[in-house]
Amino acid sequence: MTREVVLAARPVGEPAESDFELREATVAAPAEGEVVVRNVFVSVDPYMRGRMSGVRTYVDPFEVGAPIDGGAVGRVVESRHDRFAEGDWVTSQLGWCEQGVVDGDRLRKLDPELAPPSTALGVLGMPGLTAWVGLVDIGRVEPGETIYVSGAAGAVGSTAAQIAKLKKLRVIGSAGSPEKVEWLRSLGIEAFDYRGTRAKDALSDGIDVYFDNVGGEQLEAALGALRPFGRVIACGAISRYNDERAEPGPRNFGFIVTKRLRVQGFIVSDHGDRFRDFVTEVGPWVRDGQISYRETIVDGLENTPSAFAGLFRGDNTGKMLVRVGADSLS
Amino acid sequence: MTREVVLAARPVGEPAESDFELREATVAAPAEGEVVVRNVFVSVDPYMRGRMSGVRTYVDPFEVGAPIDGGAVGRVVESRHDRFAEGDWVTSQLGWCEQGVVDGDRLRKLDPELAPPSTALGVLGMPGLTAWVGLVDIGRVEPGETIYVSGAAGAVGSTAAQIAKLKKLRVIGSAGSPEKVEWLRSLGIEAFDYRGTRAKDALSDGIDVYFDNVGGEQLEAALGALRPFGRVIACGAISRYNDERAEPGPRNFGFIVTKRLRVQGFIVSDHGDRFRDFVTEVGPWVRDGQISYRETIVDGLENTPSAFAGLFRGDNTGKMLVRVGADSLS
Repeated sequence: MTREVVLAARPVGEPAESDFELREATVAAPAEGEVVVRNVFVSVDPYMRGRMSGVRTYVDPFEVGAPIDGGAVGRVVESRHDRFAEGDWVTSQLGWCEQGVVDGDRLRKLDPELAPPSTALGVLGMPGLTAWVGLVDIGRVEPGETIYVSGAAGAVGSTAAQIAKLKKLRVIGSAGSPEKVEWLRSLGIEAFDYRGTRAKDALSDGIDVYFDNVGGEQLEAALGALRPFGRVIACGAISRYNDERAEPGPRNFGFIVTKRLRVQGFIVSDHGDRFRDFVTEVGPWVRDGQISYRETIVDGLENTPSAFAGLFRGDNTGKMLVRVGADSLS
Repeated sequence: MTREVVLAARPVGEPAESDFELREATVAAPAEGEVVVRNVFVSVDPYMRGRMSGVRTYVDPFEVGAPIDGGAVGRVVESRHDRFAEGDWVTSQLGWCEQGVVDGDRLRKLDPELAPPSTALGVLGMPGLTAWVGLVDIGRVEPGETIYVSGAAGAVGSTAAQIAKLKKLRVIGSAGSPEKVEWLRSLGIEAFDYRGTRAKDALSDGIDVYFDNVGGEQLEAALGALRPFGRVIACGAISRYNDERAEPGPRNFGFIVTKRLRVQGFIVSDHGDRFRDFVTEVGPWVRDGQISYRETIVDGLENTPSAFAGLFRGDNTGKMLVRVGADSLS
């Protein structure tokens, strides 16, 4: 038996506990080529909010009554795949459950000697790849440029800000608490608290690139601050994901023409072929401590929905994870 | 003596006759290297509205009390430059006046045997280059794609729509009268009248590229219709130039992320180095009649302000010009 979280109702506005249901489920016996994995960490990510709304975008919506798939890290408890053995650390898309059966070809094995396995969901996983692809392939940042990263204390933002710093950019970052700002400053980021300081004022020197994780007012301030030929790396808009009605876009959209801006959206899942290059560059930085990362870990599968809702209140510093099982197998 | 139009006041909203003043002026004797030009056509262009507002964007604002410079075509009446002789057709930035003195190095000579001189202000001039650079360098359009061109009966739009057609795209265009729609249809463009048909409905098949001359509702409809990895060639926003307050941007800005769109602004004056390539490709199409062009010609310098204001009411089909003098020299 296992436990899993299913979508009970499509959230209206902020996700509520009642939109989810914890239930017991059986774990099927693995067929040839399949592996049984016991999750240690499951990931909650802002993009999952869109999937809960039932609108098809770049990824199929979650169905009401069905389990919620997503990134997870765990250990193999039974293997019928020749690349995996009991005890292996793996990352999967098993989602919000304690245990499940996975096609071994869709698993990636982790080496816990190289990096803590949880990093496969954060700085060395999807959020890290998002940050790197955004900067390198979408923004094509150059040394000496000034970049503004909103949501800079989040999983994507904190990685983007530090990679940009290592690539010799001047980095300005926003976050939503004094503690987050302090952490960012300790990393050499010119951080400000957007709850007390207007982005417009913080960006008055001008910027060349904006890494947008937030949308809304921050986006409008960034369009105002961008220099001619600036770029917007349109990664996400967490300030908007709980909106029930589409709110108006930036009033200064016209700057895109007059300042010859390039605004480019991207979705990390289109860039899986860049994973190896990403790990080659960023892996050593993480290993050597040139990139720091933080994790906000909530305990217990039953707390996954509230951890998820917390993303939109900024409860997390760095990557938000839910621990659903022990590290050790026994 | 000559006559010139000066800016009498910064327009508030729609430009009014009282914002301009016609006055007499003297023409200085040309210094060495200078040329005296008598204008035949002066150009009125939507981008000039921004210069009247006194806000510095990519080009200096017009000053109250000062003449209005801009594109013009005329004939040399006196030359102290060795490349020009009396009678030559030239294009200059002399602007809204009947006659003026110009540095010969800033003049381009026209060959009236190759194309009517007025085309140097339209299909073979700045608006034509805008259309071509937008499609080729900014939108990077490909055969078989579907493009939507708003303002498709204007100087830029009608050229863009026809170039796109010649490059084997499916072309949908919008315009603001039955006559304009009929003209576009005669050119093989799938045209609709945006005053009677909602762009959203006309674009329900989906599009790959949007050539935006208009902004506002058309932009919002296009963002909705764009397919994944679509592009917006952000050329202008004539529906917005008379706004006194910045209106909200498109409500569906979020599609830029979810559909991985690229929205890129450009200003033709950054692309002067492409003029030769543009003429090489587009010149023969115009000469052979594969690209049609229309001109809306208003007579008399004193009618320049109302011709200009007419751009925002859609008075023009194709390029709006003001004839300020005879073709012949005598």
